[in-house]
Amino acid sequence: MTRIVYGVHAARACLASGRKIKTLHLLRSMKLRSEFEVLAERAGAHLQLQERDALDTLAGSRHHQGVIVEVAEVAARREFNEDWLLSKFDSPPPSSLILALDSIEDSRNFGACIRTAAAAGVDAIVYPKSRGTRLTPAAEKAASGGAEQVPIIALSNLVRRLNWLQAHGLQVIGADSDALTPWHETDLNAPTVLVVGSEGRGLRKFTKSSCDALVSLPVLRGIGSLNVSVATGVLLYEVLRQRQCAR
Amino acid sequence: MTRIVYGVHAARACLASGRKIKTLHLLRSMKLRSEFEVLAERAGAHLQLQERDALDTLAGSRHHQGVIVEVAEVAARREFNEDWLLSKFDSPPPSSLILALDSIEDSRNFGACIRTAAAAGVDAIVYPKSRGTRLTPAAEKAASGGAEQVPIIALSNLVRRLNWLQAHGLQVIGADSDALTPWHETDLNAPTVLVVGSEGRGLRKFTKSSCDALVSLPVLRGIGSLNVSVATGVLLYEVLRQRQCAR
Repeated sequence: MTRIVYGVHAARACLASGRKIKTLHLLRSMKLRSEFEVLAERAGAHLQLQERDALDTLAGSRHHQGVIVEVAEVAARREFNEDWLLSKFDSPPPSSLILALDSIEDSRNFGACIRTAAAAGVDAIVYPKSRGTRLTPAAEKAASGGAEQVPIIALSNLVRRLNWLQAHGLQVIGADSDALTPWHETDLNAPTVLVVGSEGRGLRKFTKSSCDALVSLPVLRGIGSLNVSVATGVLLYEVLRQRQCAR
Repeated sequence: MTRIVYGVHAARACLASGRKIKTLHLLRSMKLRSEFEVLAERAGAHLQLQERDALDTLAGSRHHQGVIVEVAEVAARREFNEDWLLSKFDSPPPSSLILALDSIEDSRNFGACIRTAAAAGVDAIVYPKSRGTRLTPAAEKAASGGAEQVPIIALSNLVRRLNWLQAHGLQVIGADSDALTPWHETDLNAPTVLVVGSEGRGLRKFTKSSCDALVSLPVLRGIGSLNVSVATGVLLYEVLRQRQCAR
């Protein structure tokens, strides 16, 4: 079984990840062709030069930027599952930081959150298996390599896992536009799970009621709200700020 | 002369803005048709039901979500120009906050920065007229209504205007991945211009040397950097945090 990863940044990260690559498909006329030929050789990948139509079909999208990696689905990816989460956070290190994505609907938003979370150095990203989007090729491309850097775990029951993490010493902080506490007025130095909700509706009811605290980001102008990956970035970098200042 | 605005959020904001609307083009089979029919009537706009192909052609894009507003280009939009900037910030209020976008290349990133800046309540957004992208329909859609809420001014010479703003009491803070000062270690309580650079290359040389201070956001994992709208969000909300805490 193989899995598809496309886009320049995502493909570079994938080829550098040490995972078993089956084939690297490159657009014949691609500008970065020589760079990717070298990467393919280093990764021991079979190289296939293609026309644009064939790549469009393979990716199921026109946004592949001329490069598609076909990855052999081996255990490497599967090692990050719920069991890994339970063993990793059974005794959570003081610096623990987990991002929970509660039913993000748009794949590119999901990927953008992963990119942001990778940059902020989170230990893991969790999301509910049966709600919202998942790690699609479009999400992986938007993650711009970040999906290779952070364990991403689909959970069969998000609320149950949040409760388990709380019982093991992590505080669960939810982002909620109705919350009265500004984002910077909660102590984020303790081991923390940050939960952000879907683009339109925010956190689901049971997710919200599982949180130890809810915080909000003000929206001073504009009819809408912040993009979910921007809100995630503001909140995660507030965690980093508080922890750097505490040192 | 008319200008095109498309996408559900952008169109809603545009129809509510009080600007002179020439025509509202709606996809015949659009879900929100009745809502937009009411908005068109209130705005005194001519309503035109269309098929998808006609909308694609009119927008020059397939991302119009079934709604395109044709706005009469009147003085309302043109009132925010360099003269407005000079008179507004001749004696800058203590809470002044300006976002300068130095040569953003991608229209959707440009729009995402506008959306974020609107939410953070900036007083104005400035960018160089002859470099990078500008307020295209794609940018306006990504801004999700934010472009109606904040004065956006194209400058013929960004560096000269930054110097002028400095001379009038605003500090100019640049985001630069090589800077040694973390983003939260600069005092942002004074009237401030925050400058962020292009996706790949950051600030231009002369922009960078015009800054009073440079700050960086750490990227702890991942091969890339933060998306420019996420970085903009983290920095602008740090300004809000410091100012809220100072009160």
